[in-house]
Amino acid sequence: MRLSARNSLKGKIEKVELGAVMASIKIKIEEPGLITALITKESAEALELKTGDDVVAIVKSTEIMVGKE
Amino acid sequence: MRLSARNSLKGKIEKVELGAVMASIKIKIEEPGLITALITKESAEALELKTGDDVVAIVKSTEIMVGKE
Amino acid sequence: MRLSARNSLKGKIEKVELGAVMASIKIKIEEPGLITALITKESAEALELKTGDDVVAIVKSTEIMVGKE
Amino acid sequence: MRLSARNSLKGKIEKVELGAVMASIKIKIEEPGLITALITKESAEALELKTGDDVVAIVKSTEIMVGKE
Amino acid sequence: MRLSARNSLKGKIEKVELGAVMASIKIKIEEPGLITALITKESAEALELKTGDDVVAIVKSTEIMVGKE
Amino acid sequence: MRLSARNSLKGKIEKVELGAVMASIKIKIEEPGLITALITKESAEALELKTGDDVVAIVKSTEIMVGKE
Repeated sequence: MRLSARNSLKGKIEKVELGAVMASIKIKIEEPGLITALITKESAEALELKTGDDVVAIVKSTEIMVGKE
Repeated sequence: MRLSARNSLKGKIEKVELGAVMASIKIKIEEPGLITALITKESAEALELKTGDDVVAIVKSTEIMVGKE
Repeated sequence: MRLSARNSLKGKIEKVELGAVMASIKIKIEEPGLITALITKESAEALELKTGDDVVAIVKSTEIMVGKE
Repeated sequence: MRLSARNSLKGKIEKVELGAVMASIKIKIEEPGLITALITKESAEALELKTGDDVVAIVKSTEIMVGKE
Repeated sequence: MRLSARNSLKGKIEKVELGAVMASIKIKIEEPGLITALITKESAEALELKTGDDVVAIVKSTEIMVGKE
Repeated sequence: MRLSARNSLKGKIEKVELGAVMASIKIKIEEPGLITALITKESAEALELKTGDDVVAIVKSTEIMVGKE
């Protein structure tokens, strides 16, 4: 199945920690990858984002899914 | 300011595309990084996730923020 | 109160599981419903999405809210 | 590939609408399905959620991904 | 209907901007309110969060819903 | 570092509660602030949102990050 989610980074699990209901999975990303961020045009303009800028892609842990073959 | 968001990957902007309200920012991630995914314990068990597994971290574009110095 | 969230599926709770901070609520959806997914135009084109396609709507559990009368 | 995302509802696309950057995909869900919502224990207790309750699962459109074979 | 979402801040719309598919709604929050943030225990410990700390609650615009009577 | 996330409300922590994997942070917001909600144009039209409307900004707790100097 192909997914609409644009961002998929390959890695290896470093640690699995289980709570009562939740689990925390730490993944070491080693291959380079391309990420698409959808933000408001207003933010893009406020930060003056343009090709070549050094930036940081930030994601809350609750937003990350795990896929496994 | 320090942020609670655990996941922050350094990269360079490859493309900025502006819509009427939204903007799409493509970021090339080149440095390795560590990502934390919070999923249900049930999913972690169903996928039998364990240290050393090859996995993919998947994120919807709308969940990604951009930070710039 | 009317909500901007477009997706609301009626169901019955099958199981409630409590952790220390989080709770997992399993809901059996029995009535048909209409769901709106907002994705990138790029994804819609890459998957060649068009009227009549059989697809799957996928949502992370942390993104689902529960409403009760 | 198996996904950690617990919620996947089968349907048929009713309408595709393209913006400059975003696309809106309307999906008719016809088969019954089981959904897992992760909410705070505090909310589960405040709403007195229990097995058998009639509830509504609510999701913002930006949180829904589309999968296609 | 009562909602599991814990965070609800009253305000007045300052501006509505329509795109092709999306709309941006600016809301002036004037009443004080209580917000619950669910983060990883690891983050809470890394930031040494404790009662009385001055902090900032940060939310991506795509995560905010609007309710109207 | 400047962030693309448009919504940042200043407050004081009222309570920190730790689970096995997650933490719940209650923040009292006391200063007024401006919030941007990105919703579908369809929702904006269905709710007839316009300048001056009294509305409620609703956010799921899992979507809120915490920043601390």
